Amino acid sequence: MSATREVYLDNASATPLDPRVFEAMLPYFQESFGNPVSFGDRGNKASDAIEEARAQVGSLINAPEREITFTSCGTESNNLAIKGLAAARRGKGKHIIISSIEHFSVLHPAHTLERLGFEITYLPVDEYGFVDPDQVKQNIRADTTLVSVMYANNEVGTIEPIKEIAAAVKGSGAVFHTDAVAAAGVMPIDVQELGIDCLSLASSQFYGPTGAGALWLRKGIQVMPLLEGGVQESDRRSGTHNVPGIVGLGKAAELAKQEMPARSKHISALRDKLMAGLKEKVEHIALTGHPAKRLPGSVSLCVNFIEGEAMLAFLENVGVAAASGSACTSKMLKSSHVLNAMGYPPEIAQGSLLFTIGVRNTEEDIKYVLEALPPIVARLRQISPLYDKFLKSRKEGK
Amino acid sequence: MSATREVYLDNASATPLDPRVFEAMLPYFQESFGNPVSFGDRGNKASDAIEEARAQVGSLINAPEREITFTSCGTESNNLAIKGLAAARRGKGKHIIISSIEHFSVLHPAHTLERLGFEITYLPVDEYGFVDPDQVKQNIRADTTLVSVMYANNEVGTIEPIKEIAAAVKGSGAVFHTDAVAAAGVMPIDVQELGIDCLSLASSQFYGPTGAGALWLRKGIQVMPLLEGGVQESDRRSGTHNVPGIVGLGKAAELAKQEMPARSKHISALRDKLMAGLKEKVEHIALTGHPAKRLPGSVSLCVNFIEGEAMLAFLENVGVAAASGSACTSKMLKSSHVLNAMGYPPEIAQGSLLFTIGVRNTEEDIKYVLEALPPIVARLRQISPLYDKFLKSRKEGK
Repeated sequence: MSATREVYLDNASATPLDPRVFEAMLPYFQESFGNPVSFGDRGNKASDAIEEARAQVGSLINAPEREITFTSCGTESNNLAIKGLAAARRGKGKHIIISSIEHFSVLHPAHTLERLGFEITYLPVDEYGFVDPDQVKQNIRADTTLVSVMYANNEVGTIEPIKEIAAAVKGSGAVFHTDAVAAAGVMPIDVQELGIDCLSLASSQFYGPTGAGALWLRKGIQVMPLLEGGVQESDRRSGTHNVPGIVGLGKAAELAKQEMPARSKHISALRDKLMAGLKEKVEHIALTGHPAKRLPGSVSLCVNFIEGEAMLAFLENVGVAAASGSACTSKMLKSSHVLNAMGYPPEIAQGSLLFTIGVRNTEEDIKYVLEALPPIVARLRQISPLYDKFLKSRKEGK
Repeated sequence: MSATREVYLDNASATPLDPRVFEAMLPYFQESFGNPVSFGDRGNKASDAIEEARAQVGSLINAPEREITFTSCGTESNNLAIKGLAAARRGKGKHIIISSIEHFSVLHPAHTLERLGFEITYLPVDEYGFVDPDQVKQNIRADTTLVSVMYANNEVGTIEPIKEIAAAVKGSGAVFHTDAVAAAGVMPIDVQELGIDCLSLASSQFYGPTGAGALWLRKGIQVMPLLEGGVQESDRRSGTHNVPGIVGLGKAAELAKQEMPARSKHISALRDKLMAGLKEKVEHIALTGHPAKRLPGSVSLCVNFIEGEAMLAFLENVGVAAASGSACTSKMLKSSHVLNAMGYPPEIAQGSLLFTIGVRNTEEDIKYVLEALPPIVARLRQISPLYDKFLKSRKEGK
């Protein structure tokens, strides 16, 4: 089978830029270039564009625009939240709670804080990847300064009970941050209704440009900036503004808000077809994450006896782009910390496969993948010692 | 006089994007979008583009490409250098030397380190803004871990004796960083010949896009990352790559290298005309910075008895964009720390005016400004109490 189709199912890695978003960015590259902090017309025009984007991003999550800080990506937002809040609030205490399935841009800053004398509690998750709000509550201490649990997991799609976790944190004096990079712009988020304090999002997850992210931080909560030096972003994040990027983030947020119901309906219908088809057509697989409480476009599974990376290579050969484990680790060969935390043993977790569906995907894409994958799996199993062992043990009635 | 012409002389704030750079970026927004760390063709294509840009940036400053780390802006590069080197090298000591005229993206991180228990020596400068290499040497101690002196000052244009300062640091065990944001891509820089260890640069200073910067760090020197989480940039800077931005930075670096002699000749000829014209046509001014050892496009001055901000507003009215003090402080009303360090009293420093010339400027632009400024100065002096006082004192023969 040769590549007769290009099927992009790696939207968690990066979504394609919406042409309407690009259109909105275009004037700010050349004609209307300018530094928003400069004096005069050029500066003001760029500054106005940034403030419009701030309102658009605020509106996406129901936050006052003045509480939005622009960053260069989701990783920067998460680093600013974790390290910046820990540093600014160290007078309150040095205990932090995070889940064990956080993205590396939360986990690694937590490890760094640990080396600097902070104490981190890593909350376990169940087989679906859920954090238990009661466990959050039980682990909060007088010196707990920050709790961070992701809105939805980028790798297995599970949506966490954020409202319940926020309620568990409330009144404790700790700040509650959620890494919503995988969820913001994809599903409705109302920070007021959720009762959270701080949220990270990234433009490249909802058809906006790379190079733009944001951190929402409730008024009155202090954060120590990572990037210092100018007067930008109320001193929370200095550095010359990436004006076209920020304008693109704003436009992408506006479109995401308007079109979310239609996008979600389209994408989740394809997701359900793909999940049902995989169960039917491929033997010995485990769909990972929660079957219903999951991101609309996420289909994650472990294919027993073979390696995710090998499947990716064969899928690539027939024109299908997918991922294995988190996007950020696909060039590192180690098994996923998320699947490990969910109780999958390494020999199962190594067969991790992640399809993430976007607005451009069609039913034909799904059909194509459902035809392409089974022969790939069969072929790889033929050369898999693990599968061989399995067959023998079955034959022997073990 | 109404605006008959648009004259952009605020290139230090942001240079216009070169159309050829934009052309090079274009494919990476839509057709060739992709996450460089993703598996497969899309990821590899994006990754190849980034490595090409890395080579282009390396070539601009004669550094091996693998020693280049991409960031989101010059401010991020400086923060990573100052805070990241201080943190990684704290075992060596906690003493840092910087000049007193550094950009805020070096100064503010230094202040933060001071609060965290580091000791900072702020070197004085002379009336031209020069740091004395002998003073660098005298101030180095056994526990000095980092010396940072900017390549050229963004506000008064003075080019520092970087080679001599590097020689003064050499052998001491301290690392020498230079903030070359105002100089890289504008004048020839050879990090090997200079004997430096670490250098910051920003794309938006040489006709590249905003949202892209770089830090060069000599092999073997450790830095603690500010943004952690992924596998990008050899773990020195995580976060989804801004592929179009990085491609643009690379292309801008390539063009800057090729065209530097021609650009420099054109720009410095205009600079010299503007400086000569100002001296001739405007009374009671002081050109600031060194008259010869200065950035090719920088014309900086203090106009006595009036405020820089007022001149900017009047210049804006006739279509001229300029700056007062550093671009990052133009929306803050306080006198420049650079001019203060150079010995200008606040009442003179408040009249700071900065014209920065770029490749698109023409002789007509310079003539226009030289006609526009004198009546503005005259008008503002009519309502200046300081000028009134000066005239009275002169009349009284004081």
